[in-house]
Amino acid sequence: MRTLTGLQPSGKLHIGNYFASIKQMLQAQNRGEELFIFIANYHALTSVNDGNKLKNATYEAAAAFLALGIDPDKSTFWVQSDVKEVLELYWILSGYTPMGLLERSHAYKDKVAKGFETKHDLFSYPVLMAADILLYSANFVPVGKDQIQHVEIARDIALKFNNAYGEILTMPETRIDENVATISGTDGAKMSKSYSNTIDIFSDAKTLKKQISSIKTSSEPLEAPKEWKDCNVYNIAKLFLNEEKQKNLQLRYEKGGEGHGHFKAYLNELIWDYFKEARDKFEYYINNKNKLDEILDIGAKKARKEALNLIEKIRKATGIYR
Amino acid sequence: MRTLTGLQPSGKLHIGNYFASIKQMLQAQNRGEELFIFIANYHALTSVNDGNKLKNATYEAAAAFLALGIDPDKSTFWVQSDVKEVLELYWILSGYTPMGLLERSHAYKDKVAKGFETKHDLFSYPVLMAADILLYSANFVPVGKDQIQHVEIARDIALKFNNAYGEILTMPETRIDENVATISGTDGAKMSKSYSNTIDIFSDAKTLKKQISSIKTSSEPLEAPKEWKDCNVYNIAKLFLNEEKQKNLQLRYEKGGEGHGHFKAYLNELIWDYFKEARDKFEYYINNKNKLDEILDIGAKKARKEALNLIEKIRKATGIYR
Repeated sequence: MRTLTGLQPSGKLHIGNYFASIKQMLQAQNRGEELFIFIANYHALTSVNDGNKLKNATYEAAAAFLALGIDPDKSTFWVQSDVKEVLELYWILSGYTPMGLLERSHAYKDKVAKGFETKHDLFSYPVLMAADILLYSANFVPVGKDQIQHVEIARDIALKFNNAYGEILTMPETRIDENVATISGTDGAKMSKSYSNTIDIFSDAKTLKKQISSIKTSSEPLEAPKEWKDCNVYNIAKLFLNEEKQKNLQLRYEKGGEGHGHFKAYLNELIWDYFKEARDKFEYYINNKNKLDEILDIGAKKARKEALNLIEKIRKATGIYR
Repeated sequence: MRTLTGLQPSGKLHIGNYFASIKQMLQAQNRGEELFIFIANYHALTSVNDGNKLKNATYEAAAAFLALGIDPDKSTFWVQSDVKEVLELYWILSGYTPMGLLERSHAYKDKVAKGFETKHDLFSYPVLMAADILLYSANFVPVGKDQIQHVEIARDIALKFNNAYGEILTMPETRIDENVATISGTDGAKMSKSYSNTIDIFSDAKTLKKQISSIKTSSEPLEAPKEWKDCNVYNIAKLFLNEEKQKNLQLRYEKGGEGHGHFKAYLNELIWDYFKEARDKFEYYINNKNKLDEILDIGAKKARKEALNLIEKIRKATGIYR
């Protein structure tokens, strides 16, 4: 049973990303599940048009995920554009993609409604996503609710293709983790880059401190007992604490005598320590791109082997034989 | 100055194809112009969904064009799918293709109007065509009037891309040969596969005879002088005759004493002889696919060299660096 995940190289990872999805991915990897994980740099072209920016973002994403625990010996980890066959499948699948399927895509309609300039890549994005999923014969695709439709589109396309050529493509299924908590940001709303309320994983000490000090808290006298339940600082801190330590922190809130400044300092320490090893590894990879390239080359080779296996069947079936 | 032509592997070539475009291409080649000529098998996927059929059609097209005189030493001649980079450029260009540009495509609108099932490949076809043209930095694209819009779309896309990344793509121009006569078919209408009024180049003797005998003629007594001007037999025969021989044939019409059966027999002989060498070569290639593969491999290598040259610049510019 193979699970496939595409990661956007879209800038800094924050602790919301980590606790809402990365952690689950790492747990699955370490349970021995077969994971295929790629950095979706072709997809990123839909929103980036600065070569240096995309190149750096791709390296940073690779460094970040390796630093956080993706193990290239256990998982297949590669950069999307290293396996060009995905674009061949993308074109071939286009012949099995009714226009209506794409016209009904929520993501596209939303972007049109928001006044984005409508370009062909935005429109055909779900077909490339289908190629990503189907090229590697993925059984499961973990997605947020807003992405379910994309997997359904991939299934529809696969069904049409298989109807024409036989059972070549594997039907993917969505895997929605119902237990995923919403991680709140510095303002209490869902942590998200678009709300500018994130606490980033790979910040330097100064930036981390700044982000933490921006957490909105209630203003009460130092001595007063404090409510931890709805406190943004507590709600972030608890992610890093086991039950016992959560209790201890609750007691400190209830006892009074400490202000939110103290709790923020504590949170700062928690986050700093929790990601220390990852931060060091991230620094190492970013400063040793040849090492990073080496790992990505090996991942690309593993991924390409799978891709070639399937695309050769598809070439034979469709008559793109050479 | 480089001229690029894409050939559909869409079945039997007829003498209308030959006199309306292939002959001009061969003349250009033999004048020493730089020609890039490819068999558009990815495009053919929009209408074929039978692998053996497409594979055979691709081989047949290659054999036919080589037999007719494409010289792989003078021209770059390859199968589209042998240079996968075209699909990478296709995806990248999609980010510079406003949806409106594709929605206004006559070819797409016509197919929708005719009730074709609208699939994504039909819609995005002009983007792949733009990639074909731009990947090889073609200066000229000889097209029929119905294809002018496609070259204009390629220009629009190239302009947008160059605005974003600098002068990387070459602006293609259409080349419309004003002197191209419309070749009439067996019923006097324009010769076209879709009208089933063709005389095919690589038919066996029996089929050729049948196609020629189906030419519509007026019915007059054998002895009567005949009108050559509007005679379908004469109009096809003249393509194979120099001025002197055209005059001789006109005299035979005017003199009377010969029926259309005689003229058809003469036309049969003309066509059979004209394509004799080509027919032999075609047979040879079809029966020696390893020789054909060898020629196509060399062509693919030449084409890929050009393609890589450009795509590497584009990867660098867009940040698809690996």
